[in-house]
Formats: sequence, structure tokens, C-alpha cells
Amino acid sequence: MIKQERAARTRDALLLAAAGEFRRHGYDKAKLSVISAEAGVSSGALHFHFESKAALAEALRNEASHSLRRAARLVHGRRTSALQALVDVSHALADLLRRSSVVRAGFVLSCETEPGTGLNLRQEWQCCVQQLLAEADDERTLAQGVAQQHMAGALVASTVGYEVLSRSNPEWLSCVTLTAFWELLLPTLATAQTLARLDPAGTDAAHRASATALRTGCAPAPVGPSAP
Amino acid sequence: MIKQERAARTRDALLLAAAGEFRRHGYDKAKLSVISAEAGVSSGALHFHFESKAALAEALRNEASHSLRRAARLVHGRRTSALQALVDVSHALADLLRRSSVVRAGFVLSCETEPGTGLNLRQEWQCCVQQLLAEADDERTLAQGVAQQHMAGALVASTVGYEVLSRSNPEWLSCVTLTAFWELLLPTLATAQTLARLDPAGTDAAHRASATALRTGCAPAPVGPSAP
Repeated sequence: MIKQERAARTRDALLLAAAGEFRRHGYDKAKLSVISAEAGVSSGALHFHFESKAALAEALRNEASHSLRRAARLVHGRRTSALQALVDVSHALADLLRRSSVVRAGFVLSCETEPGTGLNLRQEWQCCVQQLLAEADDERTLAQGVAQQHMAGALVASTVGYEVLSRSNPEWLSCVTLTAFWELLLPTLATAQTLARLDPAGTDAAHRASATALRTGCAPAPVGPSAP
Repeated sequence: MIKQERAARTRDALLLAAAGEFRRHGYDKAKLSVISAEAGVSSGALHFHFESKAALAEALRNEASHSLRRAARLVHGRRTSALQALVDVSHALADLLRRSSVVRAGFVLSCETEPGTGLNLRQEWQCCVQQLLAEADDERTLAQGVAQQHMAGALVASTVGYEVLSRSNPEWLSCVTLTAFWELLLPTLATAQTLARLDPAGTDAAHRASATALRTGCAPAPVGPSAP
């Protein structure tokens, strides 16, 4: 394995270990010594990659942000309609949160710390929902009488709730749960004609997007001991 | 003011100050010295009422639990139908969370710490939703084809989301937002005949319940200096 590859694997192992430690003990109580031990690297190797706990948290936020935005862009690129894109993005995001503890940790950190002047990932999701509902309105696929602002609010609140609840029970963010949610909501949201063409379980675009969006090299499990 | 009354006011002032300190800094970083100073009492007076930070947190959880359960019971006692009771309980709970920082802090503490063998308040809310949907089914007021389990999940996730989002922006838990939510959901949930009799803004029962459920003596603002 060449040096760069080994460094990338060490970095990924540290992110994965940090995600676990932050989840178990919260950011304030998380210990760098536990993170480096769990990643199977020395304290020096940890500091070679991340100068502080704050830098580790920032890297987790960036990983989550990168993956979630990429998934949304991929869905958008293959969209058939704004409403199907909305369903698909929600499935892609849920899939990423289910599959990657790094994305989950980064998402939680992004939403629970002050974002400075930028938007946190939950607010970005709200922008995405509002944008897609406005596009659906332009496409004339929204059912008559749908109040866009309130519908966006209900969709954002529900999905935020599913994510929060999934932290103690992953079933809340399963494909089955999310599909059932869209089966309930879509008849209120879409015209009858549009409804017949929508797939509440998400199209192929959703599932391909989440598979592609996880950064290549983001290890699904800790690697063994290695130098930076 | 007799001694007992003064002690009760001091206790309430301490709970209110603790709610503020826990919200600003989280449980782990909250300082008892700040709480007693903010309540305008000595450190000795604080320890007279609460032997530790854990005891303060436990008292906040109990206050929230007491108020929320009482509101639910009061709504139940004046119910016209299970679906209206569901709408009314949600309004009463939102109203309590809006009005009382003590209830808000207790609710957050209950949901974010391990509840031991009992249920946390979020899980109690889930039981309440499931129970009322089952009763609505018995009353034959549920629209045909409503999958109770999925509907309960969607209702719980949405309301949990509204509560979480309201922590940074109270507008998410306003009466207007919640009414709009029920206006969207009720047509999917209720038979057409039932729908005409439902008030998505909540009946008088909801608003009376929340007014009565706040424990008498739970001060809405810190009181001045006083001995235990």
C-alpha cells in the first residue's frame, strides 16, 4: 500500500472512531485518547491528521455535508419530476444516515452546534424541500389548495423527527417507514394524475445516489494499526 | 409571606434558573453557582432544596411529566371524540412547551437521558397517539385504508420534529403552525363525515387544559432574593 493510501485509511479510521466516541459520550466528554486507540493509531498519528477535537468535529461535519449534498445533486440530475425528486432525495438522505456512522455523527454535530454565519444541514434540507415544492408548483403537479409554506414545514418537521427518533431506534429511518410516510402524504400533496406516476418507495435514482455519494475510501469499519 | 410559601417560591425560582442554565450550557456544563445566583438565593438555600445537580434535573423532569400528563388527562375528561382529543392534546402539549421554560427543560432532559426502566416523555406521547388512533378506529371515525401503525409513526415523528425545531425557533411550535399541520393531515386521517366536526385549531378543552395543568406556584419569572 503506498503512503498516501495508508494516510487516507488512517484518516478514515480516525473519523469512524470519532463518530462512535461522539455518539456514545457527546462532543464535550469525548476523549481523543479513546479515539486514537479505537482507530488503532498512536496519539501522534491522530494529531498528524487533526490538530484538535474541534478539527475532528469539523471534518465529520464536512464529510456529512459532502455526502448529503452530493446525493441531492445526483438525484436532481436524474429527476423525472420535482415531487419524485423530493421523495427520492429523502430516501437517499435516509439511506446515507442509515449506512454511515460518519454521516450520522456529522449531521448531528452540524445541527446541534452554532453554524456561524452558514446554514446547518437541517436548514439546507429545509431549503431543498421549499425549492422542490416551488418547482412542483411550476410544474402544476401540486394538488389544489396545498399551502406550500405549511406543507414544507410539515415535511421538514416529520423528517427531522424521523432522524431524531432513529438515534435510539434505527427502524424510524428504515425504507419501509419512509415509504409509508410518503404513501400517507402524497395523496394530499399531488394532483391525482401526478400521484399515479409517483413512487413513494423512491426510484432507482435515489438508491444509486446514496451508493455513489458516500465518499470513496470512507471505510465502513475500522482498519488495523497503521502509520499516518 | 409564611415560611412554606417562601420555600415554595425559592424552589420554583431555582427550577426556573436551572431550566435556563441547562438550556444555555447543557446538563454537563451547567453550574450550580450560576443557578443559585440567578435564582437570587445562597448556595446553602439551593442545597436545602436540591442535594445535587442530578436532583435538580430530576425535579425538572418531574415538573414536565406532571404538567404534560395532567393536560392529557384534562383533555381526555372533556373529549368529544378520539380524533378531536388527539388534536387537542397536541395543542395542549405545544402550549405548555411554549409557555413554560421549566416544562421545556424537563421534556428535553427526559428525552435525552436514559430513562432507566420507565418510558421517557416522548415515548409516553407515542403511547398516547397510538391509543387515541385505536379508539378512533373503534369509533369508526378513521378514513378507510388508514394504516394505524404508520399513521401513528408519522404523527409522532412530525410532532417530535416540531418540538426539536422549536428549540432554536419557537415559531415551529406556534398554534398557527400546529393548526396548519392538522389541516393537512386530518383529511387523510378522518372520514368525511367526521372531518366536518373536527377543529384543527383545538377546542376550548385544549386551551383550558394547558392553563390548568401548569402547577400552581410554578413561577413564570424569577422571584427576588428570599430564604428557603
